[in-house]
Amino acid sequence: MKRCILTLVVTALLAPAACADEGMWLFNAPPRKLLKEKYGFDPTPQWLHHVQRSSVRFDNGGSGSFVSADGLVMTNHHVGADCLQKLSDEQHNYLKEGFYARTHAEERRCPDLTLSMLLDIKDVTDQVNAVIKPEMNPQQAFSARRAVISRIEKEASNSKTHLFANVITLYQGAKYNLYVYRKYLDVRLVFAPEQQTAFFGGDPDNFEYPRYDLDICFFRVYENDTPAHIKDYLRWSKNGAQKDELIFVSGNPGRTDRLDTMARLRYLRDDGVPYLLERLYRLEVLLTSWGARSEENARRARELLFGVQNSRKARYGGLLGLMNPAIMAKKLAEEARLRHAAETMPALKGTAAAWPRIAGAQKVMFSHLRRFTMLETAAGFNSTLFRMARILVRAAEEKAKPNGQRLREFVESNLPLVEIQLFSKEPIYTDFEELKLSDSLMYLEEQLGHSDPLVRKVMADKSPQERATELVRGTRLGDVAVRRQLYEGGLKAIEESQDPMIQLARLVDPESRKLRDIIETQQEIERQGYAQIAKVKFALEGTSTYPDATFTLRLSFGTIKGYEQLGQHVPFETHFAGLYKRAEGHHNLPPFDLPRRWVENKDKLDMSTPFNFVCTADIIGGNSGSPVINKDAEVVGLIFDGNIQSLVLDYIYTEKEARAVAVHSQAIPEALRKIYDANDLADELTGQRHAQRAARAGR
Amino acid sequence: MKRCILTLVVTALLAPAACADEGMWLFNAPPRKLLKEKYGFDPTPQWLHHVQRSSVRFDNGGSGSFVSADGLVMTNHHVGADCLQKLSDEQHNYLKEGFYARTHAEERRCPDLTLSMLLDIKDVTDQVNAVIKPEMNPQQAFSARRAVISRIEKEASNSKTHLFANVITLYQGAKYNLYVYRKYLDVRLVFAPEQQTAFFGGDPDNFEYPRYDLDICFFRVYENDTPAHIKDYLRWSKNGAQKDELIFVSGNPGRTDRLDTMARLRYLRDDGVPYLLERLYRLEVLLTSWGARSEENARRARELLFGVQNSRKARYGGLLGLMNPAIMAKKLAEEARLRHAAETMPALKGTAAAWPRIAGAQKVMFSHLRRFTMLETAAGFNSTLFRMARILVRAAEEKAKPNGQRLREFVESNLPLVEIQLFSKEPIYTDFEELKLSDSLMYLEEQLGHSDPLVRKVMADKSPQERATELVRGTRLGDVAVRRQLYEGGLKAIEESQDPMIQLARLVDPESRKLRDIIETQQEIERQGYAQIAKVKFALEGTSTYPDATFTLRLSFGTIKGYEQLGQHVPFETHFAGLYKRAEGHHNLPPFDLPRRWVENKDKLDMSTPFNFVCTADIIGGNSGSPVINKDAEVVGLIFDGNIQSLVLDYIYTEKEARAVAVHSQAIPEALRKIYDANDLADELTGQRHAQRAARAGR
Repeated sequence: MKRCILTLVVTALLAPAACADEGMWLFNAPPRKLLKEKYGFDPTPQWLHHVQRSSVRFDNGGSGSFVSADGLVMTNHHVGADCLQKLSDEQHNYLKEGFYARTHAEERRCPDLTLSMLLDIKDVTDQVNAVIKPEMNPQQAFSARRAVISRIEKEASNSKTHLFANVITLYQGAKYNLYVYRKYLDVRLVFAPEQQTAFFGGDPDNFEYPRYDLDICFFRVYENDTPAHIKDYLRWSKNGAQKDELIFVSGNPGRTDRLDTMARLRYLRDDGVPYLLERLYRLEVLLTSWGARSEENARRARELLFGVQNSRKARYGGLLGLMNPAIMAKKLAEEARLRHAAETMPALKGTAAAWPRIAGAQKVMFSHLRRFTMLETAAGFNSTLFRMARILVRAAEEKAKPNGQRLREFVESNLPLVEIQLFSKEPIYTDFEELKLSDSLMYLEEQLGHSDPLVRKVMADKSPQERATELVRGTRLGDVAVRRQLYEGGLKAIEESQDPMIQLARLVDPESRKLRDIIETQQEIERQGYAQIAKVKFALEGTSTYPDATFTLRLSFGTIKGYEQLGQHVPFETHFAGLYKRAEGHHNLPPFDLPRRWVENKDKLDMSTPFNFVCTADIIGGNSGSPVINKDAEVVGLIFDGNIQSLVLDYIYTEKEARAVAVHSQAIPEALRKIYDANDLADELTGQRHAQRAARAGR
Repeated sequence: MKRCILTLVVTALLAPAACADEGMWLFNAPPRKLLKEKYGFDPTPQWLHHVQRSSVRFDNGGSGSFVSADGLVMTNHHVGADCLQKLSDEQHNYLKEGFYARTHAEERRCPDLTLSMLLDIKDVTDQVNAVIKPEMNPQQAFSARRAVISRIEKEASNSKTHLFANVITLYQGAKYNLYVYRKYLDVRLVFAPEQQTAFFGGDPDNFEYPRYDLDICFFRVYENDTPAHIKDYLRWSKNGAQKDELIFVSGNPGRTDRLDTMARLRYLRDDGVPYLLERLYRLEVLLTSWGARSEENARRARELLFGVQNSRKARYGGLLGLMNPAIMAKKLAEEARLRHAAETMPALKGTAAAWPRIAGAQKVMFSHLRRFTMLETAAGFNSTLFRMARILVRAAEEKAKPNGQRLREFVESNLPLVEIQLFSKEPIYTDFEELKLSDSLMYLEEQLGHSDPLVRKVMADKSPQERATELVRGTRLGDVAVRRQLYEGGLKAIEESQDPMIQLARLVDPESRKLRDIIETQQEIERQGYAQIAKVKFALEGTSTYPDATFTLRLSFGTIKGYEQLGQHVPFETHFAGLYKRAEGHHNLPPFDLPRRWVENKDKLDMSTPFNFVCTADIIGGNSGSPVINKDAEVVGLIFDGNIQSLVLDYIYTEKEARAVAVHSQAIPEALRKIYDANDLADELTGQRHAQRAARAGR
């Protein structure tokens, strides 16, 4: 998901919020009343069930949908980019050149990509809260909660039938739902355009509109080495997205902070976001300058650089929102309303303490921010090899513990996913590892101080650069077989290992775990506080609201319409013709250059085909790759971005100018047929393949 | 000056330092003994006088030399870049395309460039120190010192005869010398190649070797609207730089920290340099992403971006040096030796207190680092218009005071230079100003905190972006006439001004000045401490040493020779042929692409012409544009860079791998004639123009 800078959003905030197209709704609590009142549409349980099961989550951070009975999955190019990067090598740059498998046999399995389809949802709030006793301190409460959640998840999971269960914390801790997923672990690449087409306009156009991006990518899920048969999948709309039409977006928004207290928002504004941006600036410069040295360097750094730039632009825009006094004043007024109710309504007795408790937790978390980020988030050890080492070290320790006492990521039901990551055949480049590790060790020393005892031990009397070289050239963890051996060898193998990266991970782990413990305890305090605040909210507004985003499946809705920007009307859609015009306007210079195929096949294209469009649906990072569907649950578009005015949606919804940006459904088969000679794929998408088969069978 | 990352320098540090080519020597204390012993060469007073007066300082941060009797000045392209940027507009991009004036009439005057030729040096240490009484506290001492220095400078200056005097603090405060300069205020652009040629290889190749850069630029100084007649100028060598030859570099190294105490070095390593790098990363991302939006944006941001990238790479390499335990151990041993002497030698009684006093000053300075950087260094107000506003506000206040009490930059003898800056016709772009100011106001809020009272006043209840827009669009300071009016109107005009940028500068000024006062007081403590340490050093080593660099004229020496890098020998010189080979190796992709002229005129070039070379001379940022001369004071090259191993020279000299990088003298006329059809300029340089004239006159 991508996004940036807002200014005139302020006036929008003063408009009445009633009946806005706001909300990332739970599939088990859809906004039926709102939809009926505003749009006269009432989604049936069957409609919801079908859309839910047609949607998939890309576990590496995006959304997608089934678009054929044969397991075809549609998402964004920038969601598929991680796989494209990992399948590429010195000879094949699929990220840059694109990819098309004309037969199933040519489809390439992604090294570590997994997809999740949400089968069922069950409320387990009472079950989770039952284990928390009044006499427990936050640390004890956290342990008890972790244990019960691990138990619930284990009971509902079954790796043989690919069922993976997750207890999701909603409303920051007011509710717990059990989500049971069908996981797909064999995901293969079918089609990707050139990155230059998918991301035409590059960083400058990212989070902007009008746009001209074919940000699409297709995968196929497999079962037993054959394409999976899919019951619920989305049909392709004949007419595509129409102006002023009611549409829905089904996807997995990653994280919002709309219910956050002022204390939390201030923390994000004053410390959290600026500190993250500082790291992003540093990484962007590191990757850009190293990438400029050669084409091959640029290829190796490409995916990571894209992610860094994307986050940087999104966070920058969000921070400008937090620094906007008008937005914060609105937030403050809302909090005052809730706190007043908490203090005065007898039924809410005791809830008013939630705010100071949450504020206290922010302070404790802030006091550990640097060390936590450097050690546990591993910003001081930016290296794939270190990540592997830490997984190995922790897996050995955690697997020796009872399930309920393990770190979340190592509970029984999650181990298959850990193994997929650990045994991934993704290429690891020594020079790139040295670059990232050297710079991050330097950052570690800057952040924690030269004379910090742990820093001195990490550096082993060397400069950061020398130390990084020694670690990367000395470790054997680049070899999957070595990792497998260590994983299977358990604690003993780890303790006896002479591998320098394993030893480094072991050196850092005690303090890193201690910090995680501190932060998780504070998060427990937050959760309990937010559960109280939710009680206040529910008392005032009823339960017909939606929780903050949690990278789980949600339903958003809205209409397809343009907006006003600096006094100018921005139309709701663009066309292929606009793409060529924009490229010409920039003399075809990067990032506004067209790939060869688009130049050569220009005349074949119907220039009036709608290309991108905007709608008011409430989305955020993680929604990338979400299908845009109409009332008949047909695909009319594919979400890939938000405009610059949407960057504030992390904290507050506005529909005056904020828009979700999508690829128009009609652009996809048109480009597949005319530019990429991919008629089979276009047929499969649009249902013509089935129609043809049926017709052939009928003859 | 440009430079990066060292690793193997450590071993070099263990080699004996005796008789190394170390030193940035004062012209009034040249290393005659050392030169005689090592090279059997003894520069005469006439030789020194001639070289000194043939050298010029580019006051905006570089070095240069007179290379003809008609005022022709040679420097680097990246030193001239500031003027090239300011002379360019939407229609003319001289920075990118280059410039050549075929006649004097076509030479273009730089908006605010001034050059300084060092006429005379006089020791005024006793005179300066005489005003410091034992009973004075550091603040009083600073005021007294400032007053006497301003008086000495005023007495020795004469703006009518273009004499500008500066008292230079040497050995961090052990000595004071009066430097009397002849200033040239009318400097005109004669020739510049394309930036792509001057900076071939871009950021990746910056501070690296082998290199292929024609980093040259020519100016001409004028008097009374005609080319100045120059008595002392450097002749062109017939043979150019030869392997193993003794050479000299006469230029203005900007700043080194070799005499710094451990307390100071630790401060730089732990706080000073990381904090500066953080700002540079932020600026680089800001300028790069904005520049990517259009060619015109890129043009506007070009010069600033180059400076930011150049500093970032240099500082990064320097910081890696400070983080190298071997280097710091050597520094520590040296300090221990001095401290031991201070504590034990009777003649040095009292000097041992210097170290803790300097350490104390570091602590105080660190405690004000953020606020000082944001307010007084104006990192929170990154805008040319704000800079103009501050000059106006302060000039009005300072000019009303007696000369001795003014801030350094506003004493009588400096006012003509202030006016040149203030009335510069450099273009100021509204969009670029908004970009920089918006981002820096955001940074201000991040750094000083949202609720800081001054920050709240600065923001005036707006978001940083809204506030920047309001300030930039509201101010009239973009107009030189408005600035002149305000300057001439004095205090009254400033106080009555409704200009929002003037009002902002006034708002910030009281606290900003207070911070400056604090820092300058600590610097006085440092100076007094270093004077004591210098006493210790002189007692142990005699006075035959050189002070840290102060952006004043120094003489370095060395030999032309290659070095070993990672087990490979790096030859001392490159040739034109190598340039074409390197461009081909990178498929002519930026930053390894050749300008059109170089492609079209390739066949005319003698490919075996030496292009760049390295030598052991001790240089640093500020030396850019320094001539490399032989024993006969003839030009054999032009310094433009140091290699990556030289980035540690800020703190410690090493000649094992660290090298200065220069353009070979023979490459310059060859390129001028064959690529640029600039025979007249080549003739003037090489003395053939005079020879032709003489020949013609003789006929």
